[in-house]
Amino acid sequence: MTEAFTLQCPVPLGAKDKVLLGHGSGGTLSADLIRNVFLPAFANPILARMDDQAVLKINGARLAFTTDSFVVKPLFFRGGDIGSLAVHGTVNDLAMGGAKPLYLSVAFILEEGLPLETLSRVVDSLSRAARAAGVEIVTGDTKVVERGSGDGLFINTTGIGVVPDHVRLSASSARPGDKILLSGSLGDHGIAILAEREGIQFDTEIQSDSAALHTLVESMLETSNAIRCLRDPTRGGLASSLNEIAAQSEVSMELDETAILIHEEVRGACEMLGLDPLYVANEGKLIAIVEPDAADAILNAMRRHPLGRESRIIGTVGGSASGSLAGLVTMRTPFGTTRIVSMLTGDQLPRIC
Amino acid sequence: MTEAFTLQCPVPLGAKDKVLLGHGSGGTLSADLIRNVFLPAFANPILARMDDQAVLKINGARLAFTTDSFVVKPLFFRGGDIGSLAVHGTVNDLAMGGAKPLYLSVAFILEEGLPLETLSRVVDSLSRAARAAGVEIVTGDTKVVERGSGDGLFINTTGIGVVPDHVRLSASSARPGDKILLSGSLGDHGIAILAEREGIQFDTEIQSDSAALHTLVESMLETSNAIRCLRDPTRGGLASSLNEIAAQSEVSMELDETAILIHEEVRGACEMLGLDPLYVANEGKLIAIVEPDAADAILNAMRRHPLGRESRIIGTVGGSASGSLAGLVTMRTPFGTTRIVSMLTGDQLPRIC
Repeated sequence: MTEAFTLQCPVPLGAKDKVLLGHGSGGTLSADLIRNVFLPAFANPILARMDDQAVLKINGARLAFTTDSFVVKPLFFRGGDIGSLAVHGTVNDLAMGGAKPLYLSVAFILEEGLPLETLSRVVDSLSRAARAAGVEIVTGDTKVVERGSGDGLFINTTGIGVVPDHVRLSASSARPGDKILLSGSLGDHGIAILAEREGIQFDTEIQSDSAALHTLVESMLETSNAIRCLRDPTRGGLASSLNEIAAQSEVSMELDETAILIHEEVRGACEMLGLDPLYVANEGKLIAIVEPDAADAILNAMRRHPLGRESRIIGTVGGSASGSLAGLVTMRTPFGTTRIVSMLTGDQLPRIC
Repeated sequence: MTEAFTLQCPVPLGAKDKVLLGHGSGGTLSADLIRNVFLPAFANPILARMDDQAVLKINGARLAFTTDSFVVKPLFFRGGDIGSLAVHGTVNDLAMGGAKPLYLSVAFILEEGLPLETLSRVVDSLSRAARAAGVEIVTGDTKVVERGSGDGLFINTTGIGVVPDHVRLSASSARPGDKILLSGSLGDHGIAILAEREGIQFDTEIQSDSAALHTLVESMLETSNAIRCLRDPTRGGLASSLNEIAAQSEVSMELDETAILIHEEVRGACEMLGLDPLYVANEGKLIAIVEPDAADAILNAMRRHPLGRESRIIGTVGGSASGSLAGLVTMRTPFGTTRIVSMLTGDQLPRIC
């Protein structure tokens, strides 16, 4: 996902500060980097909205514009590869702004020595994913770095879409009373990547959920204009995405743990590996914050779509714009207790996308 | 630059074929990669035009869209750094389509351990270059890879601009009789990078020519609507750019070596290093192919601009659309002989941009 973050005061950099893997996690270190380095330099009103896509007005059209680099390791995994992921990730960032995805650029950074056959497989997959999503790859670039200065191949995709006139989605739009919907199970992508990377075998095979969500979004927007905000919980997982929305909207959120679907194999793998599935990356799921009266209709529309069959209402927005709970995400456990769900700190799983 | 190339029949990949540094050179190996891997997978009418930017029609607006990754080594060099280069490169690709550059996305791939102070310097420079060029950075992304899986930092910038209605520039538009204009001296960027990388000292300091050329282009387009094609001779140098245009337009070109300006220090460095300045990368120069009657007026407009003061007419387009000379670029030497100027083969200077 394109970075989203909480605005706070910049902290001066120390001379010895270095980039850590966690700076790419989508969690608090990513937010620090943006706050301390990128935002002071690049600040402008469009960037400051900090949704997963910029919305630009050109000639009366509202264009969504978003960029993402992909460094996933390994290049091929159950349920996808870096090529299909590079399409899905950028298509989804456009879709989360309510945009119809239209065009992609694709830029490769190749490491000297990469088998051309590997590149060719990735390119074929990327091309198939683009065709399936109905987006055209219209411009590209290739750079090559010496052996040891890269890692096989990295891909950047940057996308353009058109946002319909009446659609206004933003992470700052959540209001107390809104319902929080999740389109399916958590953690499949992250655990599939980790299993592949570490050579872990499970009884049933966990597949990445990598998928293009724009047609799911389209059917949701057709059903109702009461959707406030959409986001795909990629790096940093559900927990980090909800924390970002809560902070930007200055609201609190209360989740119901029993409503959050996690496949048994994923839950087992997370327990074994000491991971919390709320923080594991997904690449084919979305969160919707919707007005309470429309929640059931939107939920039904989601369930009718193949990628939303397991959609559920997982929580409620609370707090108030000026309340002391602003930004706080909590979760009722099956035992009746409540725990705080904070943003990801550190890096659970590097190079997940 | 975004890739440009000659269309030929695909050659099947061998199982042992690997990515070579030359695949990123902008020369024949780059063209092979596009022809054999990218084009068969991605083919569509917009991509097939293979200019340095795609032109998309959205809501009646003509949008230019272009992407470039930057892997230059070292990160800082005389006359610029990877940050300013990342702005200039993409702004120039938009400008070569006659577009007014408006918006950039910026995506970083950082290597674990990179000093944050280095990142901060690059970001500051990028930001200053964007402000100077009048473009807004509206969306971004950051990924981090483990130590040894990257090389400090790589940047992708992707740009959007608007092409005025009456502007139709393309590498397929050159016609016999057209004049070939070059906006200044050759080789400064490539030799500045090489000097920095290899620790070579020159009597006078050679600086990169890295610059945003869109205001130069604007003044040229205001002067005349007889400009057929613009291109910035980056990777692969003047020779490769002209070969691409000659091939796409199915014309020949004859250059006058005495008209091609190469600063004395660059010429000396090239001789010492065994490089041909016609193949060395530039980051602040443009080639214009223009109708013969308008050549003088356009040349004068270029010379009045600070970035075009040393502009010259360097050659003439010849051949015919069906002639056997189509695609051939030749050069008259000061000795009265003529030599063939072919496309770059192999890789003169890796990681120049």
